[in-house]
Amino acid sequence: MSVVQDVLNGSRLALSRLLSQIENSTPEGHAALGELFPHTGRAHLIGVTGAPGTGKSSLVNRLAWHYRHPPEGTPQQRIAIVAVDPSSPFSGGAVLGDRVRMRDLSGDPGVFIRSMASRGSLGGLAAATSGLVQAFDAAGFEIILVETVGAGQAEVEVARLAHTTLVVEAPGLGDDIQAIKAGILEIADILVVNKADRPGVEHAERALRGMLQLAHPGPRVFRHHGALEVVPASQPESTSSESVWLPPIQQTIATEDFGLIELVEQIAQHRQYLHTSGEWEQKTRARMQSEFDELLQAALVERWRASVSDEKIEHIFEKLAQRQIAPRDAVAALVR
Amino acid sequence: MSVVQDVLNGSRLALSRLLSQIENSTPEGHAALGELFPHTGRAHLIGVTGAPGTGKSSLVNRLAWHYRHPPEGTPQQRIAIVAVDPSSPFSGGAVLGDRVRMRDLSGDPGVFIRSMASRGSLGGLAAATSGLVQAFDAAGFEIILVETVGAGQAEVEVARLAHTTLVVEAPGLGDDIQAIKAGILEIADILVVNKADRPGVEHAERALRGMLQLAHPGPRVFRHHGALEVVPASQPESTSSESVWLPPIQQTIATEDFGLIELVEQIAQHRQYLHTSGEWEQKTRARMQSEFDELLQAALVERWRASVSDEKIEHIFEKLAQRQIAPRDAVAALVR
Repeated sequence: MSVVQDVLNGSRLALSRLLSQIENSTPEGHAALGELFPHTGRAHLIGVTGAPGTGKSSLVNRLAWHYRHPPEGTPQQRIAIVAVDPSSPFSGGAVLGDRVRMRDLSGDPGVFIRSMASRGSLGGLAAATSGLVQAFDAAGFEIILVETVGAGQAEVEVARLAHTTLVVEAPGLGDDIQAIKAGILEIADILVVNKADRPGVEHAERALRGMLQLAHPGPRVFRHHGALEVVPASQPESTSSESVWLPPIQQTIATEDFGLIELVEQIAQHRQYLHTSGEWEQKTRARMQSEFDELLQAALVERWRASVSDEKIEHIFEKLAQRQIAPRDAVAALVR
Repeated sequence: MSVVQDVLNGSRLALSRLLSQIENSTPEGHAALGELFPHTGRAHLIGVTGAPGTGKSSLVNRLAWHYRHPPEGTPQQRIAIVAVDPSSPFSGGAVLGDRVRMRDLSGDPGVFIRSMASRGSLGGLAAATSGLVQAFDAAGFEIILVETVGAGQAEVEVARLAHTTLVVEAPGLGDDIQAIKAGILEIADILVVNKADRPGVEHAERALRGMLQLAHPGPRVFRHHGALEVVPASQPESTSSESVWLPPIQQTIATEDFGLIELVEQIAQHRQYLHTSGEWEQKTRARMQSEFDELLQAALVERWRASVSDEKIEHIFEKLAQRQIAPRDAVAALVR
């Protein structure tokens, strides 16, 4: 299949066409992904998530710039950016529409940016994103930044996909928001307090630190502007601090490029940690497993649907609607 | 089966045992639910959701009290409260543990309160909650209040289960939180601004109104303290305002019983709307359909697993781990 060879040879046009086929879930797209799969597994997948207004997009752009302009002696890397917007239809368009994407990066053949609008279905979105990431991975992009806008389940899906998850905050959020975000903090490998020139930055960092302590009880070392700070354990724990990753908090001002070099360094440290701890391999397996599980369910439902007559399904659904039969018994009747 | 008859006859002990069986997903529990199902369909399911700190629990308690102490001429109703805590394991215990549940209501045989801790799995939690609600419904509880703590997907699950969804807010939340909550506002049938004696209540209500306008463009009538207020349409729409439910915003102070009578009235109006519009029936069907779909997937995966040898699965998984085969092709190989 020539599109596969073209993608492997670095054709942007072939890659762009393939990405569209994957987004639209065409048979050609699935077939190409199947052929490309043996070439995947090298990219570092970085998820970037957080509330609207935290400046995620600017941060992602500056991160990409730094990977394209590394310090002397460090190899330049190819960067893919997947901007996912799983939020509700009414906000979705505006968020993506406004986006003025990276004047700094335009024309750079080592950068590929792809926006995905919401499809309504979270499951479908996750599967499509996973496909895009595999295509970029096979095409030789070493760093894949997956940026999500929104709250809740979408962030968790990103964390499941990514090796390293950045959760971006900004000063000026109330205490209540911190409480809500407890679940999101748990998925953070690195916490970024962006817009750190805004008033309230110290308060935001303190609040995050408190939440982190709740989320990861035990002795903790926070890296902050290069300095180390030990926070007493809220409960005794026997794990050695070498075998546990303690999410650092990094202040940044993306628009002024402040804190970005440190952030790139922390991402590199996390990657190192993933490899030495064996978590890189674990995360890769967990991701494959969950992708397998989702595809399996879809395939089984499809096969089942083809094996049962419409009449039988209608008959059982009628009994269900009349409450003559419970949902569990309806399933049992239709699955034998 | 005597437990079923005992539950139908109003035995609290039998009901309590059945609820445990449902929570633990035992075969006895499933069998009893199957027998009880024809007796379900009468209860009004009310979901109450919102961020921690908004005073949801107090609000639910006062609501229950009002249903137990109705005005002259209105029948008293039996109330079940299901407190679901799908939030993360580390916050879960504390939130439920602190709860001092309703001194006003203790000893009232027309009130039954059940707390459910998190099971880790959201899907399992939704299925168990659905089972509890069916048991309460069959046992003759006319009002079932399902209260969730947490953010994101859990709220959406509640909305899918409930006929009427209350989203509870409190003053003092920043602008960012409003943006995050866009998705949650969309599921609200009634918006409650609790702790309305706190500073910032007008700001919170204004912010919510703005969000509501984004979520439901078109001419809108907001009910607020009994007065009607027409907000101009942000885009033309042909739907008549009689056939559309416009979520009212109700200020309350649960601890002082302020606004509760009005809230009970708005819930009654929403129920009326559901019946006249046909949405009650639609929601019931959608709920059954999604419960059926989840149980079907689980049953199909179970049946498939029993039909495939461990060796074959291990062989394919090994090829998957080595990236010799893509997840979709692995599924195809295992499902024939």
